[in-house]
Amino acid sequence: MVVGEFAEKRDLIIIGGGPGGYNAAIRAAQLGLKVTLVEQHELGGVCLNSGCIPSKVYAQAAKKLDALGQYASFGIAIHEPTFAIEPLNDYKNITIERLRKGVEELCKANKIEVIRGKAQFINQKRLGIEISHHFDLYDFERVIIATGSTVEIPKKYRSAKILTEAELYQLNEIPPHLIIYGQSYIALEAAFTYRQLGTDVTLILTKEHFSFDESINRELLRLLKKQKIKVYRDYQLKDLVESHTLLQLKLSNSNQELTCEGSHLFMEGTRRGNIETLDLQRIGVECTTDGFIKVNKQLQTNIPTIYAIGDVTGGEQLAIKSIKEGKVVAERIAGLNSEVDLSLMPTVVHTIPPLATVGMTEQEAREKGLNIAVSQFNYSGNGYAMVTSEKSGIMKIIKDADNDVLLGFHAIGSSVIELISTAVTAMEFVGRDEDLNFPLYPHPSFNETILEAIEGLNNRAIHMKPNEKKSVKV
Amino acid sequence: MVVGEFAEKRDLIIIGGGPGGYNAAIRAAQLGLKVTLVEQHELGGVCLNSGCIPSKVYAQAAKKLDALGQYASFGIAIHEPTFAIEPLNDYKNITIERLRKGVEELCKANKIEVIRGKAQFINQKRLGIEISHHFDLYDFERVIIATGSTVEIPKKYRSAKILTEAELYQLNEIPPHLIIYGQSYIALEAAFTYRQLGTDVTLILTKEHFSFDESINRELLRLLKKQKIKVYRDYQLKDLVESHTLLQLKLSNSNQELTCEGSHLFMEGTRRGNIETLDLQRIGVECTTDGFIKVNKQLQTNIPTIYAIGDVTGGEQLAIKSIKEGKVVAERIAGLNSEVDLSLMPTVVHTIPPLATVGMTEQEAREKGLNIAVSQFNYSGNGYAMVTSEKSGIMKIIKDADNDVLLGFHAIGSSVIELISTAVTAMEFVGRDEDLNFPLYPHPSFNETILEAIEGLNNRAIHMKPNEKKSVKV
Repeated sequence: MVVGEFAEKRDLIIIGGGPGGYNAAIRAAQLGLKVTLVEQHELGGVCLNSGCIPSKVYAQAAKKLDALGQYASFGIAIHEPTFAIEPLNDYKNITIERLRKGVEELCKANKIEVIRGKAQFINQKRLGIEISHHFDLYDFERVIIATGSTVEIPKKYRSAKILTEAELYQLNEIPPHLIIYGQSYIALEAAFTYRQLGTDVTLILTKEHFSFDESINRELLRLLKKQKIKVYRDYQLKDLVESHTLLQLKLSNSNQELTCEGSHLFMEGTRRGNIETLDLQRIGVECTTDGFIKVNKQLQTNIPTIYAIGDVTGGEQLAIKSIKEGKVVAERIAGLNSEVDLSLMPTVVHTIPPLATVGMTEQEAREKGLNIAVSQFNYSGNGYAMVTSEKSGIMKIIKDADNDVLLGFHAIGSSVIELISTAVTAMEFVGRDEDLNFPLYPHPSFNETILEAIEGLNNRAIHMKPNEKKSVKV
Repeated sequence: MVVGEFAEKRDLIIIGGGPGGYNAAIRAAQLGLKVTLVEQHELGGVCLNSGCIPSKVYAQAAKKLDALGQYASFGIAIHEPTFAIEPLNDYKNITIERLRKGVEELCKANKIEVIRGKAQFINQKRLGIEISHHFDLYDFERVIIATGSTVEIPKKYRSAKILTEAELYQLNEIPPHLIIYGQSYIALEAAFTYRQLGTDVTLILTKEHFSFDESINRELLRLLKKQKIKVYRDYQLKDLVESHTLLQLKLSNSNQELTCEGSHLFMEGTRRGNIETLDLQRIGVECTTDGFIKVNKQLQTNIPTIYAIGDVTGGEQLAIKSIKEGKVVAERIAGLNSEVDLSLMPTVVHTIPPLATVGMTEQEAREKGLNIAVSQFNYSGNGYAMVTSEKSGIMKIIKDADNDVLLGFHAIGSSVIELISTAVTAMEFVGRDEDLNFPLYPHPSFNETILEAIEGLNNRAIHMKPNEKKSVKV
């Protein structure tokens, strides 16, 4: 190992080239800062290389397979379609490579210095970066730590047939029977996706309900049943026996025990911040016992010139959060007065059909003792859903009945991911139902489900019979 | 003909059961009015029976055929798909019937009296309604005329091979070669749809450009070319010769003449309000020379108790307008202070990929002498577009550079119809670019094209290289 004699000087060093890191780097460069981005693996992080992107490629394949079911109605005869995982993996790899190359080119075009190496803190103003056999020193004005997190599953459950999030979309063959143990969005996407690809899927929820609004939870269960995905609710994994071709799970809840067999198991595991090699202890950066870095509202650690963003700070492990935090920290370092507010962060899940929500659930609003009005419009009442034969789904809206302010949107159905930005936008403006009642919605369109649910808050949905109306003052 | 001796009394009579009429009827009933709806044909009007719905069923078939092109990438082998128009027409008819039945049931559930008959004014407070062999008299407090409009094409162009809007989606076989003469959204949808169904399509524009923002116009031409749709711009039809299997069109522009051959021709024709049988002259309702009813901002005719909405009032012949006007008039009659404002009416077109716009085009903003900033983000820079292999398209945003207020959104690409409601909502709030920069957008998603175009207004789109940036202060 050759250690550099002199420390180089840098204004801003970002450790970690995932979505948070590279968005921060580009934004900082756009604002005139000289930026150094350190990444020990590939640019794009978990999201691009083993998370969001691969899973969405698979989800798109699943969506396409599901869509074939409606082709005959439209006069299109499809004769025995066949699915093979190899070309899908090729496409996935090409997509990842292209996107990664895109990020590399963007870094170059923005004159960002990208260093392939492993960073560790020497003191509160100096980093050491190990680059193959070199170890170079860099004095910095500011650092952003964006190293992400890693999933850990208990040692006794490590096996080639027990898949982590990253391994879920790196298989070379379709698992005959996948058991999914967990109930996050990742578990849900895997269940719907693999079912379409031809896998028998058993979904074991560790709780009685999903974490969404209760209407969405109910609709999800209905859709899972429709897809012939077996669901067990509120079970804990007690033991696991692995034989040559089979995994046998022993599960239990307060009342009974259950044995469940499958060829593969996905389990969610526990996330820990990627801080081990940073030597944070040496410089006194405060962390939680789970390995996440503590930050204030401005995403500063206890050392004000050292920031941390995204998964390594704990909380929801989502690219959307990391990207926003990365940009905002870059802007703050450049002297702008930007802020992050995650209270209206939409949650989207690529189930079939997709799911999207923002704001308060009905349960949450009730628990807070709010006086609310609730309206739910079903896709089966929407003209465009009839046209496209995509009739599954609901659009549910909750408002504060005292001041008419919109509190939450909970949707599952075709195009709800795109529609959720209407909800987010209205809520960011502290919109009332009137503000979404006034505008014009394309006709016929899925967009009209928003209008009808809004109208339903005052019992005025056009395409809902008076006696069906779900709007209730609670 | 049996003429009733006594006039019955009604609070509100709506003439015409299209989208405007039935939406007005249901809203009025919801607000406690006793409503009578008179329709001489089928409920649902042109939109449901021969316009929006049939064309969207066909467009969906076209979208599905186009989507097959990407299946192989996702590992799904489709062997020689075949298309037949008969099952598509069956599905179209079933969809229309279901939706019509839905409207009938909604009318019943809302206790709306539906009369199948033809209405004419006897005097300013009395209508006669011809119901088979009866002619009944009704005294009314208020009337809403929602009789729509009819397309007329010149007599010399009437032939089984020359199709009107309604006939376009009522064929029993796919035309081998369809010539489309016109440049409305109907012409565009027909061009993209029939091309996918296997027809050779020639599109003859009567002007040099489409009526959209110039960037959309350019992208449309590129997409038409990609679909191998032949486009002639700025030509007028001079003559037409019909033989047994062929239509021969003589076209000319200022420079040259052109002959164009095809098996069928769609031409747009001229719309006239459906007022002939109403006997409006007798009671002195003012109309234009084109047969449209004149109304004020509150949609009242010169006789304040007689309203008119939708196509019969002229202007843009769109269901979206009619529906809104119907509801607002019903609300005003019920004593609410509702208003229609069409200035932020979105335009959507089911091209492949779809098109959606709202607000001012770049040309319009320039003509007004506004100081604007313009930003265009291409779908090719969007991660989700890479994942789904839906890389064609643009998202263009225009703001007032003096006060940052958003002026227009012009988009073509996957899911832009659903995304346009975000734009409409932001603009209804008189939003500035900052208002769409602050919220969180799902990742990866098409929604992010809005964010990047917004960021581009300040040269800060993350996924656009600094030298590519299209944002310009004009």
